[in-house]
Amino acid sequence: MNPRLYSFAAGATGPWRILSTKAVRGESLPSSTPTTNRLSLLPGEAKGEAAWTLRGVRSNERYATAAEKQKLAAVQEDLGRAEADFAVLIPIRKSAAWWALSQDERRAIFEEQSRHTAIGLEYLPAIARRLFHCRDLATEEPFDFLTWFEFAHDHQSRFDQLLARLRATREWSYVEREVEVRLVRVG
Amino acid sequence: MNPRLYSFAAGATGPWRILSTKAVRGESLPSSTPTTNRLSLLPGEAKGEAAWTLRGVRSNERYATAAEKQKLAAVQEDLGRAEADFAVLIPIRKSAAWWALSQDERRAIFEEQSRHTAIGLEYLPAIARRLFHCRDLATEEPFDFLTWFEFAHDHQSRFDQLLARLRATREWSYVEREVEVRLVRVG
Repeated sequence: MNPRLYSFAAGATGPWRILSTKAVRGESLPSSTPTTNRLSLLPGEAKGEAAWTLRGVRSNERYATAAEKQKLAAVQEDLGRAEADFAVLIPIRKSAAWWALSQDERRAIFEEQSRHTAIGLEYLPAIARRLFHCRDLATEEPFDFLTWFEFAHDHQSRFDQLLARLRATREWSYVEREVEVRLVRVG
Repeated sequence: MNPRLYSFAAGATGPWRILSTKAVRGESLPSSTPTTNRLSLLPGEAKGEAAWTLRGVRSNERYATAAEKQKLAAVQEDLGRAEADFAVLIPIRKSAAWWALSQDERRAIFEEQSRHTAIGLEYLPAIARRLFHCRDLATEEPFDFLTWFEFAHDHQSRFDQLLARLRATREWSYVEREVEVRLVRVG
């Protein structure tokens, strides 16, 4: 097992309760029911029955420069903070056109044009974020990335602002599937 | 199944015969025997018994700029050319220190300091090359990359020169495991 592999499993148990599942672009994920509205984020492969499972690996940065990485490291906080009672899972798939771009072209769209890291930085440390990569798994995955955000419930409107700003960028024109799952901590 | 997944399987059958297996750095792969000295490069997962199997996915470029990608595309040739009767498989694992670097630091070492793409370009189209990524598979893999080279046997000394030049670079100081498998086409 890759020690950087994590699974999100929706089902009967788990410390997070799904409040809403919304298709932002393309197909949604299965809607939760009273018996499948819990979510777990687990290291490794999810075991047992699940309404749906998504997997991804934590990996090296693809775009951040040393200076950006240092700025992020100076202010970001880890997952699991006591005050972080809200979470949002955003699975995303980008288009073939995005992946056909060269590294410098993707970087230019990601940061110089879309200010992805710079925008995210403005919301740290309040909104903790962790990225998981799915595109290079051996199985065919429905998404390229899974991003998990954790924050205190009184930061919801700031989070909505962060999302709106990112979705208005040129980078987002390459997003062909996006789902937004909102959760509250119950365990 | 990820349509970009490929497997290298060593065993009793396959169109390539293993001539030698050499540990360049770190542990080698199992030595071939008269009954396990054939190799196949197959789409998807390898089926059946194998002396060893390595898997990887073709993926987007990690370092090449648009200009470099264009230069490569203009001269590189595909695998499977009739005259390409020799092949070399080079599985590589890089150190944790490499993966902890930011994107711009890795790019600077890879190209501005080590001239990885520029050196490779000098040997095109004679030496065809294809890269497979293993680091972000769900399973724990022994290597981060698999590189497969194909060329006509009269280009062996040019290939040796290419290898020697790459291994003398700063980028290679981050290689902690490297194996070199040389093969001849028999099927």
